[in-house]
Amino acid sequence: MPVESLLKPEDILRARERIRPMVLETPVMTSDVLDELTGASLFFKCEHLQRTGSFKLRGASHAVSLLADDCPGVATHSSGNHGAALASAASRRGFRAEVVVPEGAVADKVDNIRRHGGRVHFCEPTQAGREAALAQLVEAGLEPVPPYDDDRIIAGQGSAALELMEQVADLDCIVAPVGGGGLLAGTALAALTAGRPPEVIGVEPAGADDTARSLAAGRRVDDHHPDTIADGLRALVGERNLGLIRRHVATVLTVSEAQILTAMELIWARLKQTAEPSGAVALAGMLADPGRFSGRRVGVMISGGNLDVAARLAGLAGTPSRPA
Amino acid sequence: MPVESLLKPEDILRARERIRPMVLETPVMTSDVLDELTGASLFFKCEHLQRTGSFKLRGASHAVSLLADDCPGVATHSSGNHGAALASAASRRGFRAEVVVPEGAVADKVDNIRRHGGRVHFCEPTQAGREAALAQLVEAGLEPVPPYDDDRIIAGQGSAALELMEQVADLDCIVAPVGGGGLLAGTALAALTAGRPPEVIGVEPAGADDTARSLAAGRRVDDHHPDTIADGLRALVGERNLGLIRRHVATVLTVSEAQILTAMELIWARLKQTAEPSGAVALAGMLADPGRFSGRRVGVMISGGNLDVAARLAGLAGTPSRPA
Repeated sequence: MPVESLLKPEDILRARERIRPMVLETPVMTSDVLDELTGASLFFKCEHLQRTGSFKLRGASHAVSLLADDCPGVATHSSGNHGAALASAASRRGFRAEVVVPEGAVADKVDNIRRHGGRVHFCEPTQAGREAALAQLVEAGLEPVPPYDDDRIIAGQGSAALELMEQVADLDCIVAPVGGGGLLAGTALAALTAGRPPEVIGVEPAGADDTARSLAAGRRVDDHHPDTIADGLRALVGERNLGLIRRHVATVLTVSEAQILTAMELIWARLKQTAEPSGAVALAGMLADPGRFSGRRVGVMISGGNLDVAARLAGLAGTPSRPA
Repeated sequence: MPVESLLKPEDILRARERIRPMVLETPVMTSDVLDELTGASLFFKCEHLQRTGSFKLRGASHAVSLLADDCPGVATHSSGNHGAALASAASRRGFRAEVVVPEGAVADKVDNIRRHGGRVHFCEPTQAGREAALAQLVEAGLEPVPPYDDDRIIAGQGSAALELMEQVADLDCIVAPVGGGGLLAGTALAALTAGRPPEVIGVEPAGADDTARSLAAGRRVDDHHPDTIADGLRALVGERNLGLIRRHVATVLTVSEAQILTAMELIWARLKQTAEPSGAVALAGMLADPGRFSGRRVGVMISGGNLDVAARLAGLAGTPSRPA
């Protein structure tokens, strides 16, 4: 039997109050051009402007806030954003943070973990490699703080949607990306606290469509070979997360790599915000299924902004210089 | 004799009131990492989030607001940002806008002119080519609105610094890029309205150092062969602008292409904002001469965010996809 989450919508409200002093209330942005393009009214929740560069600080701060004062330190595995968030949340309480990172992770994300005080341990880039390395750290006495399959984490991530619903009245739906499922599951529970709950829609890369396949199969699939530029969404969906998504999420859309790149280009060009590929996946879902959103007031999660800036500059530096 | 500006600091205050309903009050951003890196307290004025993607809307709105109702339309030459700004300001009043654009201008900027309702006329990418094409449009009866060498424009551009000084108390200095010199000259006049005027410092690419050379020579140089990625700063400084800069700007620093790219990378990675190269030049000046800014409260103009997103994505799409 899969592990089930015990979370209720009220738990998201409580988590939100608990972490309020630890996270930023991120801004909401709009764009006439993007509204026109999609035929909807879009409200972008800018979690790439959250401290540490992603929504992950919310869940990590919540989990760390619940640890005892004599905790010897925390450990996790992460391709980047959860690692940096956990390191930041841990250092706030004076705990050490040890982060298992798969080889080949985005260099800027690894730097981000170290910048926030985390110690990095590289492992083989497989689920088994991650888990073995983490098990060693836990055996050494560190407290594991999983990246998504954890009620404390899910409750913290849901606070982003609560904030968004306070900032923007009468949303018809909220679109969020799904990798491990912490943000999407938390968003679904947060939506249920509203008098008229917005519909919650998940989006994942077609190259990492384990959640959509799991929903179709009625159980979590185990053949998962992610191949997508959206490095933050390559994880296998968590058991608790999948259960909440099955019960409370309207649908999970899949998007192509081209749609992700187009959405990212739109966010950069129109909002002037450097969303990372995973952070553009929610908008990509709107481009993939425009009819579903037409005429509606849509909250769109920009989940993170940590990407390999050097790679982007390589493209730009090739632009020829011309006289004016 | 060069043409002298007649502007006084109070003119900037008046222009600011006049255009208040036409422009956004852009946000100010900060970054602990960038403060630590520079040893200063930095306040980034986010004019890339201004409507049309740059501060140029301020001057264009001001100039257009002063035209008679029966104006047959406006014309200008621009590599992009002034053209889009003028088109937007003109359409607000129901005027047509014709924009001479040098061949080879950034494609996204040309699109931006058209998106705001401007009609584009390509010309040879030389100062002579620009002026000849503009002269034709003016002969046809259109009202010329120059991009920078114009008191109406300078007064409008200065409103960005006025806003910044209201948003952030007690700035010790303000750093702005200089191309034609509209923003820098306007900023210098705006600073003089303060009880304790911040020092104003200009920055230009070493590959387009006509302002620094003109200041050194005591007159505007005429040998100008710009070669820089900062396409918004390739114009020859205006006569009015140079006079104001000589009187009211503390110094004009020059920066290398590498410093511009580093500054742009820092703005993208740390602020998560897509500054265009010209928009990163003010921060590049701080990297070039850190001792000058150490320990001070510094306003930094991010002047624009219109760049060739496709070129940037070309760099990113090369990032290998890896399993999580």
